[in-house]
Amino acid sequence: MGDRNSIGSLAPGQISGDSANPGSPAALDASKLNITLAKTLKPLPPIKTLRFGQTFSDHMIVATYDPETGWSAPEVKPHGPITLDPACSCFQYGGNVFEGMKAYLGPDGKARLFRPDMNMRRMEKSCARLALPPIDGDVVLELVKCLVNLERRWIPQESGYSLYLRPTVIATRPGLGVTASDHAMLYILASPTGPYFEVLKPVSLLAVSENVRAWPGGTGGHKIAGNYSPGFLPQRTAAERGYDQILWLFGDDRRITEAGAMNFFVVVKRDDGDGVDLITAPLDGTILPGVTRASCLALASDPELHKESSVRLHPQEKAYTMSDLAQWSSEGKLLEALIIGTAVIVGPCNRIGYEGKDIVIPGAGMGPVGTALRKRILDIQEGRTEWKGWGVVCP
Amino acid sequence: MGDRNSIGSLAPGQISGDSANPGSPAALDASKLNITLAKTLKPLPPIKTLRFGQTFSDHMIVATYDPETGWSAPEVKPHGPITLDPACSCFQYGGNVFEGMKAYLGPDGKARLFRPDMNMRRMEKSCARLALPPIDGDVVLELVKCLVNLERRWIPQESGYSLYLRPTVIATRPGLGVTASDHAMLYILASPTGPYFEVLKPVSLLAVSENVRAWPGGTGGHKIAGNYSPGFLPQRTAAERGYDQILWLFGDDRRITEAGAMNFFVVVKRDDGDGVDLITAPLDGTILPGVTRASCLALASDPELHKESSVRLHPQEKAYTMSDLAQWSSEGKLLEALIIGTAVIVGPCNRIGYEGKDIVIPGAGMGPVGTALRKRILDIQEGRTEWKGWGVVCP
Repeated sequence: MGDRNSIGSLAPGQISGDSANPGSPAALDASKLNITLAKTLKPLPPIKTLRFGQTFSDHMIVATYDPETGWSAPEVKPHGPITLDPACSCFQYGGNVFEGMKAYLGPDGKARLFRPDMNMRRMEKSCARLALPPIDGDVVLELVKCLVNLERRWIPQESGYSLYLRPTVIATRPGLGVTASDHAMLYILASPTGPYFEVLKPVSLLAVSENVRAWPGGTGGHKIAGNYSPGFLPQRTAAERGYDQILWLFGDDRRITEAGAMNFFVVVKRDDGDGVDLITAPLDGTILPGVTRASCLALASDPELHKESSVRLHPQEKAYTMSDLAQWSSEGKLLEALIIGTAVIVGPCNRIGYEGKDIVIPGAGMGPVGTALRKRILDIQEGRTEWKGWGVVCP
Repeated sequence: MGDRNSIGSLAPGQISGDSANPGSPAALDASKLNITLAKTLKPLPPIKTLRFGQTFSDHMIVATYDPETGWSAPEVKPHGPITLDPACSCFQYGGNVFEGMKAYLGPDGKARLFRPDMNMRRMEKSCARLALPPIDGDVVLELVKCLVNLERRWIPQESGYSLYLRPTVIATRPGLGVTASDHAMLYILASPTGPYFEVLKPVSLLAVSENVRAWPGGTGGHKIAGNYSPGFLPQRTAAERGYDQILWLFGDDRRITEAGAMNFFVVVKRDDGDGVDLITAPLDGTILPGVTRASCLALASDPELHKESSVRLHPQEKAYTMSDLAQWSSEGKLLEALIIGTAVIVGPCNRIGYEGKDIVIPGAGMGPVGTALRKRILDIQEGRTEWKGWGVVCP
């Protein structure tokens, strides 16, 4: 695939077909990257004014897929609107997927991504689930790195701040036939961002079972656009009732699945006196396989983290219900409840509304387990700690 | 709301706020319609070349919603691409809804829509379910009628052909925050169309339970974009196995729900000798409340239709399973299986693959019940028969 680490230098209008195999559609190729820079660069906004996903950097990367010619040469171009046929599948039948990633500046001055290979594998699976044209996540990652390097001045220096990357694939087949899109557009946006929530302010959750986020045989285990908008109305209802986010339940036994658009963990004191269980729902197809989720589970097995959290942790992926939660709470065993995701990293939940009552989580803010997990992940993301190659430098 | 039946004559750039209530966002108002006609009109393609949703008329209608000013003055403009921020909610989080309607030319030369009020009520509900800005379906209908009148030359004269209308509302909030879209765009496309399937060729269905289309507490009972793309991969798998469409099952008891993107009916001989049952799944929130579905159920109670189908019909909305279907088939009681929807109207199914075997529907094409239902609906749609005001003339 050539040297993907350099930004390509081929001229615009180059042949987008695969010259090695002229009969098949071209694969996405980062070495073909064309660059059209913005004529003027935007001023950097004060970082305290940043709100998640509202400010965008100067450039974006775009590539398009045509069923005959395949992927076009990707292009760096000024961040700006896209123009599409109103009959496109992305408007009519959904069929869009995205990823969320963050680039941080380390104390060594290097820009780092956090476990980006996991995002890329998930994006490949999301595209396959929606029958979108195939996409090579390794090449998308090369393009993400190019954009990070190009937009380096947009990465805030302050801890907890980062450049949020949003690779997106949309279905662009222009026609109303109800069938898979054989056209697509990939684009990668970059948005400087601060903490998603005010971290010290815990989040309240309303447990909901009349609306259901995901179902076995559905798409809840993939990161696709259509999973999100059905949650907006329940979210609005929760806000009207004084809760920040939804806690999604599933099944007659009211199993706990996710919180808003994030994974959800609880910290429960063990009966055997050997520390605490760190519990989250298993990946049964209804749960998004979050990168931060997987990272918390992995870190929870690390003895160093047990020192930081002053407690021995037992990570557990298992089904648990609102009844379990209520019982743990009444027995004084429910120590922490955590929201987990790329945007929030690790955040505290302080109460869960269910059937007219609140289950209250003890403590005024984040507990020791959440604090230790968040600190460790940020240390890796911001390059202060090396850990199993999770922090990936953009060369 | 003024005279909605006339195409508005106000100048472009008029105030889009509600002058009667300057503090609140403007409602959608058909009397404010601005018109920009195409400079040259396209030649009409030969109708035999028409494929569903591939050819579009000369114009479309567009209006946009801003949370401060409300709905803009709607605009007739040449059919063409739309330009949007790549961070828009429609790409990132789904949140799009649409309707499908058809305009027919009657023998009296009048253009008619079929029960358009049902589409409009459904569209209002779809928008509400996705927390989109509120939209008045009665006003959208006036705009649809304007477009039909303007594009009258695009309505094919031949029976079974029509001008397909696609009102669409997309979420245009430009930002990555996971929250309801407070911006939207309405557009209405018009596409001349022939029969969706070759009607005399029956459709084969593969019954699928490993993927589910909809679930209780989900959005399957609304016409939203995100319901469709998750079906594309199962549809491809079905095609590879030699079946035309999916028959969606639900639950451990394998209840029959819908076929592809259509409702599904079976005709079953009754044990009491009093004709046949016309059975379809009930509207329990997992079934799209189809206009043609409701119309078939209503027509099945009409004694005139019983004459046309030579059998007494008992419409029934009830849960039924693959086991029921297999038993009815083995007892020789399963007489017809029908796919039902705006695009196909009423079409025959000839076999249903399930667990490696086929349930074969007797007869070479559409049976007498399907034929009578289809004929009656087309007679109403094409203005040959009056029936309860279902055919609505575009004045």
